[in-house]
Amino acid sequence: MPSQNLSFVLKKPHEVTFEDRPVPELKSDRDVLVQVKITGICGSDVHYWQHGRIGDFVVKAPMVLGHESSGIIAKVGPAVTTVKVGQQVALEPGIPCRYCVPCKAGKYNLCPDMKFAATPPYDGTLAKFYVLPEDFCVPLPENVSLEEGALVEPLSVGVHIMKQAEIKPGQSIVVFGVGPIGLLCCAVARAFGASKVIAVDINQDRLNFALKYAATGTFNPMTQVGKSPAENAETINGLFRLTVGADVAVDASGAQQSIVTAIHALRNGGTFVQAGMGRPDIEFPIVTMCCKEITMKGSFRYGPGDYKLAVDLIATGKVSVKELVTGRVKFGQAEEAFNQVLGGKGIKVLIEGVEDDA
Amino acid sequence: MPSQNLSFVLKKPHEVTFEDRPVPELKSDRDVLVQVKITGICGSDVHYWQHGRIGDFVVKAPMVLGHESSGIIAKVGPAVTTVKVGQQVALEPGIPCRYCVPCKAGKYNLCPDMKFAATPPYDGTLAKFYVLPEDFCVPLPENVSLEEGALVEPLSVGVHIMKQAEIKPGQSIVVFGVGPIGLLCCAVARAFGASKVIAVDINQDRLNFALKYAATGTFNPMTQVGKSPAENAETINGLFRLTVGADVAVDASGAQQSIVTAIHALRNGGTFVQAGMGRPDIEFPIVTMCCKEITMKGSFRYGPGDYKLAVDLIATGKVSVKELVTGRVKFGQAEEAFNQVLGGKGIKVLIEGVEDDA
Amino acid sequence: MPSQNLSFVLKKPHEVTFEDRPVPELKSDRDVLVQVKITGICGSDVHYWQHGRIGDFVVKAPMVLGHESSGIIAKVGPAVTTVKVGQQVALEPGIPCRYCVPCKAGKYNLCPDMKFAATPPYDGTLAKFYVLPEDFCVPLPENVSLEEGALVEPLSVGVHIMKQAEIKPGQSIVVFGVGPIGLLCCAVARAFGASKVIAVDINQDRLNFALKYAATGTFNPMTQVGKSPAENAETINGLFRLTVGADVAVDASGAQQSIVTAIHALRNGGTFVQAGMGRPDIEFPIVTMCCKEITMKGSFRYGPGDYKLAVDLIATGKVSVKELVTGRVKFGQAEEAFNQVLGGKGIKVLIEGVEDDA
Amino acid sequence: MPSQNLSFVLKKPHEVTFEDRPVPELKSDRDVLVQVKITGICGSDVHYWQHGRIGDFVVKAPMVLGHESSGIIAKVGPAVTTVKVGQQVALEPGIPCRYCVPCKAGKYNLCPDMKFAATPPYDGTLAKFYVLPEDFCVPLPENVSLEEGALVEPLSVGVHIMKQAEIKPGQSIVVFGVGPIGLLCCAVARAFGASKVIAVDINQDRLNFALKYAATGTFNPMTQVGKSPAENAETINGLFRLTVGADVAVDASGAQQSIVTAIHALRNGGTFVQAGMGRPDIEFPIVTMCCKEITMKGSFRYGPGDYKLAVDLIATGKVSVKELVTGRVKFGQAEEAFNQVLGGKGIKVLIEGVEDDA
Repeated sequence: MPSQNLSFVLKKPHEVTFEDRPVPELKSDRDVLVQVKITGICGSDVHYWQHGRIGDFVVKAPMVLGHESSGIIAKVGPAVTTVKVGQQVALEPGIPCRYCVPCKAGKYNLCPDMKFAATPPYDGTLAKFYVLPEDFCVPLPENVSLEEGALVEPLSVGVHIMKQAEIKPGQSIVVFGVGPIGLLCCAVARAFGASKVIAVDINQDRLNFALKYAATGTFNPMTQVGKSPAENAETINGLFRLTVGADVAVDASGAQQSIVTAIHALRNGGTFVQAGMGRPDIEFPIVTMCCKEITMKGSFRYGPGDYKLAVDLIATGKVSVKELVTGRVKFGQAEEAFNQVLGGKGIKVLIEGVEDDA
Repeated sequence: MPSQNLSFVLKKPHEVTFEDRPVPELKSDRDVLVQVKITGICGSDVHYWQHGRIGDFVVKAPMVLGHESSGIIAKVGPAVTTVKVGQQVALEPGIPCRYCVPCKAGKYNLCPDMKFAATPPYDGTLAKFYVLPEDFCVPLPENVSLEEGALVEPLSVGVHIMKQAEIKPGQSIVVFGVGPIGLLCCAVARAFGASKVIAVDINQDRLNFALKYAATGTFNPMTQVGKSPAENAETINGLFRLTVGADVAVDASGAQQSIVTAIHALRNGGTFVQAGMGRPDIEFPIVTMCCKEITMKGSFRYGPGDYKLAVDLIATGKVSVKELVTGRVKFGQAEEAFNQVLGGKGIKVLIEGVEDDA
Repeated sequence: MPSQNLSFVLKKPHEVTFEDRPVPELKSDRDVLVQVKITGICGSDVHYWQHGRIGDFVVKAPMVLGHESSGIIAKVGPAVTTVKVGQQVALEPGIPCRYCVPCKAGKYNLCPDMKFAATPPYDGTLAKFYVLPEDFCVPLPENVSLEEGALVEPLSVGVHIMKQAEIKPGQSIVVFGVGPIGLLCCAVARAFGASKVIAVDINQDRLNFALKYAATGTFNPMTQVGKSPAENAETINGLFRLTVGADVAVDASGAQQSIVTAIHALRNGGTFVQAGMGRPDIEFPIVTMCCKEITMKGSFRYGPGDYKLAVDLIATGKVSVKELVTGRVKFGQAEEAFNQVLGGKGIKVLIEGVEDDA
Repeated sequence: MPSQNLSFVLKKPHEVTFEDRPVPELKSDRDVLVQVKITGICGSDVHYWQHGRIGDFVVKAPMVLGHESSGIIAKVGPAVTTVKVGQQVALEPGIPCRYCVPCKAGKYNLCPDMKFAATPPYDGTLAKFYVLPEDFCVPLPENVSLEEGALVEPLSVGVHIMKQAEIKPGQSIVVFGVGPIGLLCCAVARAFGASKVIAVDINQDRLNFALKYAATGTFNPMTQVGKSPAENAETINGLFRLTVGADVAVDASGAQQSIVTAIHALRNGGTFVQAGMGRPDIEFPIVTMCCKEITMKGSFRYGPGDYKLAVDLIATGKVSVKELVTGRVKFGQAEEAFNQVLGGKGIKVLIEGVEDDA
């Protein structure tokens, strides 16, 4: 007998299971039911699986995992006008309250009442079906596949980071840490017109991929034995003729060494964006940041227009995401995907949706 | 016999002297000669006097001190059109190159070739005469005195900080450290329309003054034995009904405790400006900053329009600077002014110009 | 017998009546029912009364008039958390869809599905009761009266105009047309720190009031027989020592002469905001606007934070609105208020709410 | 005998001649002497030739024409550090005063004391040699030719227009008028990441070229007999699925019909930039502009960083300018180039520099 709504559930740290839950109801006239088709796995999914928490978000009850998904509209509420049954969509997995000050001021990613998929206590998208409002379903044009649609989530993270960075055509950027998010930052920076995109990582394989994928240059601090961040910054700027320093730097590593190097590599008046999470506190060169009048920004998830722009970047060929997919598993082998990410294998692993007769 | 150009010179750390130097020549057709009338002393002057250096700026040759001055135009170059002999002006003491990218992009305070008074190797304004281009002399309207004119310099620092903060009418701000710059930040924040201005300091006398002067509320962390920055932030937000956190925070103390408290006290999407200099490196809550999408900026000196706005704020009564003056000495007693600042006596000490017959 | 929900209804042009309608139901868990206490009348209300339409908005069915109201919360939906029964509030009278691109991008005033009070086909606030979502009820602090609360609507229009103008402390502004909106623009400009606020009108009484109320100078083009807009601009700039031109100009008159004068009075790079509506098309100096790189913006109603800031400006004494109230009538005499506005009597006429036993 | 400094001089309307003037002197330590190698001709050059004036700028004395040039550094002043003899450079032909408020605020194109080549009374670049400060010589990388260097001037105009438009990746833009500037606007819009670039012109040949060159779609109003601007706007938006209207519109035609169509084609909150000059006054839909909260901006010449970005766009292949060159003449045939532009032949005609032995 086919499942109603087979779901991949985290019961407690290290313990996942499959449950056949009821198909969720539409809660509002503008909600839609989506049959999930592809889901990518990222570090935060794996972190919940391993530790049952991220910071103050603690898994206290069984929770469906997954939040990087595409799917097909299966049912629409009576007031829905922008999508229709059968349409392929990318799912934006965080639904804000729409009433608070950030929501109305164009910053819904900062909504304190955000309901985000697979962030406790809210269930994620690794299920046969998922409900969300129509405006959080972004239609995929014909030339964008469901696999690419699942990658819209991390690409939107990159888009948001580059918007925070306010990167401009012709500028230079140094990206620290080229896991999936750092790689997508490089690609979006290029799409936004950056002329120099320098990738920095301690993993040479990643750097090699970054150079083929989107970076215009790379730097591996492991090749510089005993050098300080300030010295590494000087080396980077020398190698890539950033005479007065880089216009923008992004940290997608969370490592203190990266962040400090970034501050030193920036020009006076440059912009730094913190995108990756590592240790909660780091030793930080506050006087250098002050005297260079650096603008620093955090980047948290994605906001208005980011998903739509991410789809547009794929559809117009400005960013390619296909080559980031390094593994695919069936829904029934979902845990295998988590193991691959945990083991650092490949870049992005995708889990197929529940089959119709499963 | 009257001096040509009596000057107060730092020969080496702790050793100052008076020298009668030649009257400086105009170097360009748009230069003017100013007879200096009033000069305020700030922490950086005292730091050079005590240590002979600030960071990478090292006093290697005798250098005239002073950079917070007002005076009277004594001579003008042949192409000068905006000021005339006899006019009272505030002196903006840093002359940028006008050719580099920051200079032309509206950020001359970030000019790498800045010639700044009393920053080695450039002589300061504690002399009878000083030469600068006409556009760095800001005329004082009739209702602004030469004493107030000398305070335009620190007020411009406050103006620049508030511009970096992009503070908007109705917003709330927490200012950490209410020495002269912190006090002026409070006053400028009020003039810019801030509705809540909370001063934080460990010196209760300063807080009492701040509350009379410009703050709408105060907080003394010394009253909170054993509390963490996060706890103090919560206390501040509770006391002053900053329900979702403060819109803006400024650190004018340079202290790690202040900076960390500021990050915790801000709302999601709030803005932090680093204005004071302390230890070069601090322990910093980078993940909190990232997840709240805080914008951080350094503030360095002052840029286009800051001096003019500072004069306007005084002239229109939006900011009052007179009550900050807590001491006055004759030019011949200049070292006494330095001793007062070093001893933490009062808020702002002024040194009169060289008398005409001196 | 007391009314259920006595309402002042426009049946067709020139024909108004009172109807006792049912008390409206809450439509969502976050809706509240407000007992309307004070309502101001503005030009658009009168225009509907006289003409039955404004542009494409045509009154096709009986419609309750009024949209500038304050009141007292009478009932709250089960999910309401920010206001409570008995609380005094200003009513923001336009409810956007919360789903479209402008709504989520922080521009809900541009929502194409806006439901705006007394804009066909939506009923207005001139009734005993009115329903709206909690986040469009802005609490009035103790020191802000219900009368002032009714004036929050036009004040928010002025706040939005000044935000569009991005007026900054120390700047100069010329306001064309000093009816209620122009007067409030002057007041908000002052509150935002403008140093020169020049009011321009052809009605000398209004100018006299403006000068007492908030302007720092006035100009009456009727005193300049036969002068062109360019000549009047030069006269204004000469009179008020706007040497390089004004920083900002706002047209709250809708008159071609005003708009053209404004463009000529602005400095290179200045900002013009169109706030008033007159003839749909005007003769416009496009080359002057182009070569001066003027930024022009329309201003339409109000958006995120404007109501809240308007209340704050009143509460902190930065803007005073009491002196704009020049007439008060009972609910039963509502048409008299419309007649006063039509006749150009006074500045702002208020209509009291339906009495409890009426 | 070779010329000292053969120059192409406008004596009065319609009367041009060659004069052998003295080689100009360096006026400052940071000036350089450039041997001009290629000069493009634009409509304003031709306008001076035909009419002896543009607006208030009147040719009262013989003036060298030309301002779109590249060349080779022939001599450098003693303080020059950024270019050296023999280097190929694009010449930015307007030298601002560096002292006024716009100059220091990052808007030197708005300097009232601008000395602009071939704008009376300043001589242009159609001479063997030209002097300007080093920072207005932008080095051409090896992969950018001197011909491309001469096209940096009009490309910088396009860059400045797109910066004024603040066009963002993924946005849609409609460009009215696809002469050289309109074409370059299309190209820069693409380089800045615009997804839809619609060219509008009444010349079908130009539209055909635009579509091959940089536009993603075209519209010819001549095909719509008797349609109003509002109707044409609706047709454009329908054809190119601009469901809520275009994000950005630029007028590079100066025609009233274009400007009005643009305002109607924009979405609520969209941006319009006026780039072309036509009749000084036009009939303009001010109420539509107001209610849609459109931002309008003029664009005048180019400012900080525009030239450098233009060179970078060519060097990185993001914009190609070679195909715009449709004619080349020797210096001695300069008048022929003016005749070609006057006759509307081709897109861009170039004049070679004076030969070394000429």
